[in-house]
Amino acid sequence: MLAELYFKRRPGWWKMLAVAMYMALLACLQAQELQGHVSIILLGATGDLAKKYLWQGLFQLYLDEVGKGYSFSFHGAALTSTKQGQEFIAKVLESLSCPEDVAPGRCAELRGQFQQLSQYRHLRTSEDYMALSKDIEAQLQHRGLQEAGRIFYFSVPPFAYADIARNINSSCRPGPGAWLRVVLEKPFGHDRLSAQQLATELGSFFQEKEMYRVDHYLGKQAVAQILPFRDQNRKALDGLWNRHHVERVEIIMKETVDAEGRTSFYEEYGVIRDVLQNHLTEVLTLVAMELPHDVSSSEAVLRHKLQAFRALRGLQKGSAVLGQYQAYSEQVRREQRKPDGFHSLTPTFAGILVHMDNLRWEGIPFLLMSGKALDERVGYVRILFRNQAYCAQNEKRWVADQSQCLPRQIIFYIGHGELGSPAVLVSQNLFRPSLPSKSWKEVEGRPGLHLFGRPLSDYYAYSPVREQDAYSVLISHIFHGRKDSFITTENLLASWVFWTPLLDSLAHEVPRLYPGGTENGHLLDFEFSGTQLRFSQQQLEQLVPGPGSAPKPSDFQVLQAKYRESPLISAWPEELIVKLAEDIEATAVRAVQRFGEFHLALSGGSSPVPLFEQLATRHYGFPWAHTHLWLVDERCVPLRDPESNFQGLQAHLLQHVRVPHYNVHPMPVHLHQRLCAEEDRGAQMYASEISALVTNSSFDLVLLGMGMDGHTASLFPQSPAGLEGTQLVVLTRSPSKPHERMSLSLPLINRARKVAVLVMGRMKREITMLVSRVGHEPKKWPISGVLPSSGQLVWYMDYEAFLG
Amino acid sequence: MLAELYFKRRPGWWKMLAVAMYMALLACLQAQELQGHVSIILLGATGDLAKKYLWQGLFQLYLDEVGKGYSFSFHGAALTSTKQGQEFIAKVLESLSCPEDVAPGRCAELRGQFQQLSQYRHLRTSEDYMALSKDIEAQLQHRGLQEAGRIFYFSVPPFAYADIARNINSSCRPGPGAWLRVVLEKPFGHDRLSAQQLATELGSFFQEKEMYRVDHYLGKQAVAQILPFRDQNRKALDGLWNRHHVERVEIIMKETVDAEGRTSFYEEYGVIRDVLQNHLTEVLTLVAMELPHDVSSSEAVLRHKLQAFRALRGLQKGSAVLGQYQAYSEQVRREQRKPDGFHSLTPTFAGILVHMDNLRWEGIPFLLMSGKALDERVGYVRILFRNQAYCAQNEKRWVADQSQCLPRQIIFYIGHGELGSPAVLVSQNLFRPSLPSKSWKEVEGRPGLHLFGRPLSDYYAYSPVREQDAYSVLISHIFHGRKDSFITTENLLASWVFWTPLLDSLAHEVPRLYPGGTENGHLLDFEFSGTQLRFSQQQLEQLVPGPGSAPKPSDFQVLQAKYRESPLISAWPEELIVKLAEDIEATAVRAVQRFGEFHLALSGGSSPVPLFEQLATRHYGFPWAHTHLWLVDERCVPLRDPESNFQGLQAHLLQHVRVPHYNVHPMPVHLHQRLCAEEDRGAQMYASEISALVTNSSFDLVLLGMGMDGHTASLFPQSPAGLEGTQLVVLTRSPSKPHERMSLSLPLINRARKVAVLVMGRMKREITMLVSRVGHEPKKWPISGVLPSSGQLVWYMDYEAFLG
Repeated sequence: MLAELYFKRRPGWWKMLAVAMYMALLACLQAQELQGHVSIILLGATGDLAKKYLWQGLFQLYLDEVGKGYSFSFHGAALTSTKQGQEFIAKVLESLSCPEDVAPGRCAELRGQFQQLSQYRHLRTSEDYMALSKDIEAQLQHRGLQEAGRIFYFSVPPFAYADIARNINSSCRPGPGAWLRVVLEKPFGHDRLSAQQLATELGSFFQEKEMYRVDHYLGKQAVAQILPFRDQNRKALDGLWNRHHVERVEIIMKETVDAEGRTSFYEEYGVIRDVLQNHLTEVLTLVAMELPHDVSSSEAVLRHKLQAFRALRGLQKGSAVLGQYQAYSEQVRREQRKPDGFHSLTPTFAGILVHMDNLRWEGIPFLLMSGKALDERVGYVRILFRNQAYCAQNEKRWVADQSQCLPRQIIFYIGHGELGSPAVLVSQNLFRPSLPSKSWKEVEGRPGLHLFGRPLSDYYAYSPVREQDAYSVLISHIFHGRKDSFITTENLLASWVFWTPLLDSLAHEVPRLYPGGTENGHLLDFEFSGTQLRFSQQQLEQLVPGPGSAPKPSDFQVLQAKYRESPLISAWPEELIVKLAEDIEATAVRAVQRFGEFHLALSGGSSPVPLFEQLATRHYGFPWAHTHLWLVDERCVPLRDPESNFQGLQAHLLQHVRVPHYNVHPMPVHLHQRLCAEEDRGAQMYASEISALVTNSSFDLVLLGMGMDGHTASLFPQSPAGLEGTQLVVLTRSPSKPHERMSLSLPLINRARKVAVLVMGRMKREITMLVSRVGHEPKKWPISGVLPSSGQLVWYMDYEAFLG
Repeated sequence: MLAELYFKRRPGWWKMLAVAMYMALLACLQAQELQGHVSIILLGATGDLAKKYLWQGLFQLYLDEVGKGYSFSFHGAALTSTKQGQEFIAKVLESLSCPEDVAPGRCAELRGQFQQLSQYRHLRTSEDYMALSKDIEAQLQHRGLQEAGRIFYFSVPPFAYADIARNINSSCRPGPGAWLRVVLEKPFGHDRLSAQQLATELGSFFQEKEMYRVDHYLGKQAVAQILPFRDQNRKALDGLWNRHHVERVEIIMKETVDAEGRTSFYEEYGVIRDVLQNHLTEVLTLVAMELPHDVSSSEAVLRHKLQAFRALRGLQKGSAVLGQYQAYSEQVRREQRKPDGFHSLTPTFAGILVHMDNLRWEGIPFLLMSGKALDERVGYVRILFRNQAYCAQNEKRWVADQSQCLPRQIIFYIGHGELGSPAVLVSQNLFRPSLPSKSWKEVEGRPGLHLFGRPLSDYYAYSPVREQDAYSVLISHIFHGRKDSFITTENLLASWVFWTPLLDSLAHEVPRLYPGGTENGHLLDFEFSGTQLRFSQQQLEQLVPGPGSAPKPSDFQVLQAKYRESPLISAWPEELIVKLAEDIEATAVRAVQRFGEFHLALSGGSSPVPLFEQLATRHYGFPWAHTHLWLVDERCVPLRDPESNFQGLQAHLLQHVRVPHYNVHPMPVHLHQRLCAEEDRGAQMYASEISALVTNSSFDLVLLGMGMDGHTASLFPQSPAGLEGTQLVVLTRSPSKPHERMSLSLPLINRARKVAVLVMGRMKREITMLVSRVGHEPKKWPISGVLPSSGQLVWYMDYEAFLG
């Protein structure tokens, strides 16, 4: 108002104002232009990927960014001759399409501009690279442009990486102040070692911030929506996104195609390296990570992702089920000219059970599954929530958006399948989600369509307003420096650290054969129990195995005999552990009934680990609250050291049961910041703790092992202490590291009401034979001195230790 | 063969043999008869229950037992005059029916015998009882019978129990060698105290083994089948019947009728006392108990049942949702002539969440529900198993008996409902159950019938060959002395111990009103989260609340101000705890990032309990593995004493999170079997442990409280130690019990990086006011001496403590 008045009074000002405005406009346009020039070099510009996705992605980038302050040039490069290359490119450029919302005229105009800005060049020698760089610089100078940065997109086989990288690093880096981004396509190695080598090699040419490793799954619209969805629905999800509410997470990529025509690649990789190690693992971290306060911060996202990797519990053989479609081996034989008898072990189907060791997800199964030759093509992430409701009316009267008893789930539908497009589905009885209305719209009704057990109408369902190819999305992210959509070196190595041990342990595993397609029936269904995964149908012949196959104590093939004149129980390893655990529980229950408490002294090392796990997971009646746990022996290392016997006890047993803190008695090997110093009197302290709490210093049960040299507890042959005398607890030396030990003495062990000696494995055969024949010679074979004065001694040996 | 040859040779022997056989048969029959005579006295023989069930039950007993060696007499007794009583009984006896498998002629014959054996007698005075006993004895003598025992069935109101019991005890006990059984009908008290009184009173007349308390639910065929089913399917269930495989257990009794006409009884009891405390609790113990090796041993079953009671986690207000059908208050007003303004608080609907604190069931929800005026009449126990499978094919291709992804459940269908009869249902994808084929048969197909989400054809379904009334079953069990089908005194009191605190805490709770029948819609649906139960629909107006209502830190109404010149944070109690937990986590995360560990010293008592629970259940990111826990103070009691601060910490926090054993530092108040003896130097030991592990003895965070006398930690006004000086840890005396304490000293507390003082509740208002005005006077008000020398002090006070 004031300005208006002012101008009314002084009409000459209008002209001056207009001039000023014009100047400002020019300055503004120039400033935009001043954001600089970006050169994008597509390496492998005449390849399949380039033809199918990358040129279109670059054009899309141009459409999105034109007029926003940057100028562009696009260089298609390859080994193809200049002429052929130019022709190829011209053809590809001619076929570029615009999204529906761009008018045809405008599209043609923009495509013309894009063609102008794009050119092919032959790129092979280091001279070629130098020439490229010079050309870019010349062009910049000629047009008076500031350089913003250069993007090199490696759409070439990995063996070519090193050469190209060297050339770029030495000849094609942009000038100071401008950025370099190199875009790499998988595979990024074959296992931890090869990935590390590749990373080290690339690291010698590029800085971490310069590398953009593509996992195109991260460009899939439904996948890219996971973090924004979690962020925008924070309030609703905050209380739900954890082990108290989530029942399971499924991360699935099913294919109908098989590997025909690609077996030379596939034989090297298999389904785990091809799909699970990268795509499904990336998705897993997006679902599982702690949500950063600011999801737009690449750095925060990447840091949280890495934390998610750290929380992954290590996989074991039992974490996987593997399959192979029946025609696969024949295809390999044909395509790779293998002999008739050749059978491939490469899995084309895998189901994996992943657990996270953190408080948010502890105990919640993450099921990853992918396979070829399945009954349908579909990819999805499904978060199924626990049903924590009871609905007081008959189920006939349940209403979809009100009944909390109907399934509650969130699905990121990656694509294909019955829905046919990417989508986000949220059960209506959960909450109405918030999605960005510019880019996501509600899915129209599709009567008769059932997804995940419910009609589509039971969901709030959204799909993208404009379906975008993953590469278009990613190229835009590269341009905007959104590093969280790519695989950092740390991320990559963390993933291989996670997968490599499993891949190693499965290397010789025979996959289950499946016919392919709908014929698979229930053959590939799998189930988990604890951390173990297995096919639901145990054998082809036995179609309904039922869960009735858990062994009962009475079923055991347990051999009962005598060894050194004491009872011997011998069985296969698993049955032996089951039997020993049963016996320990029975002893515990009796002791608690009689005395109100049970004093159990346990040996360390690896042998008792399956026993601990058996006790932790199967013995519900064990009177832990009244059990005191003592150590038979300990290594002189801090209690938190992985070598510490106590640490093993903690990891495999204590974490899972409820023994009161004050009933747990680690050996005091670490006092006054020193380890097993004689003058700290740790052994004496432990002895008096035992005297104070254990009646007559007589443990209810002592569990021992036997070493290949005949040692037991940490009492080694020729030990100067602990084999006789009055000391209850002694410091000893082991021939193997760590040398210093603390141990219960033989006289103390022999005061126990019961001593069980567990001996397992073929390696023990020789000493087992020997000890069976020797008399009471504890100086030579400490184990021969074990003979409870008024208690019972029982030997538990597996067949391999006993029968060899 | 030999015998035959023998007889052939000596034909005269045949006759001798026949005679011998006859003699043996006679002896045998006599021996059977010699098992003795049983007199059954039905008290309240003319009442409703007797008329409806008990006479029929007695007749059924006669049918089952006739000719098996016992003789019987049945005495119907009541206060009714002899003539009227006789007429009543005659009429009832006339109407007795036989099961289908007894031919009509035989039935009439047996009914005739039963009528002969039955007689009415007026029973009021002690003379009457004496006469009864004399008559029985005379009859025995007259017929030359041995007495086996006497059963007195109390079908009378509880107020009459004492008199009758006294009379039986003094005049009607059978002779030596014969047993006495008295059968009692509920209610067995109204709460713990009244049940105890009643039990004590009865205990002065009868021995425990003589009393048979009836819960007729235990006679329902499906309920009575629970233990046999678990036993006969042990092998299949062994691995399944636990928290790893069971998702939830529902124990449900729905009624369509309301309480009209019975409101005078119902007002006194309500649904919890009427149904849940007895019927549903009994069923719960049958499902949850550890299965005895020998389920036919009453003693073992009862012992295991009692153990199940001991494992029940205490109920709190939040464990229940209550409802009342809308017409109820009006019915009460009408039937009991209450004024117009009267509104009853008696619940006619209750849902209860029960948890068991044992390793088998820990964390598994047991949902108990019963109500009147619901949409259907049905009772069932449903054990739903977790879905631990992934089915690799599209759900359209799942097959009922093969797909492990379809629901897996075992249902003991008690009766009524859509099935209309008792049944045992087992999902076909689970296992084919074994049931006694004599008494259970497969249910015939019923196309279109869906139960628990699946068509009937998805189940192996069995129903009783002969449907039997619960009272018939129980009368047979009384006769056979099967005490496990009845409620022992211990059992009864254990149940009241479990239910009474909840009943007390709910006494003034306003139940949610519901219209009744199908009109209830989803109004009575409820949900659990942790140990809390709530209606799914939070308010009548708000039909779909969704779970989006969890508070976020930013939503808090937190008042920030100053108190004693330090920051003060004030809020409602729950928000204050949420905020404090948030702040502690943030401090912990920062400390671990900077130093690799976090040293937290916690106060005991009841104030921090909600904080511990908040930390235990909501803080997934808390770096527990790197946290050291120290005690601010401790009472000089053994660590396992319920009074011990450490015990509280263990119960509410340590049990739920994973702090390594060696990071937990209880105060050494109990050394050398003594408590806080100066010469044991416990305080000095703790001080040196702190010096050794905590850099500069400077805790990262110390959490304090403030007593009404201004004490903090265990530093009380005028304390001779700990308020100043160099001692880090001191022994002190509290004015309240237990007097002896160990405490961090003020100088040590003031070395902390951060001190948080949590003050909650109206009771603290006065001291809060006072302390706000005083200076540094630790001798008078120890709390006033809290001022970290270089750290930060923050006060957390709820509005009641701060604003009064």
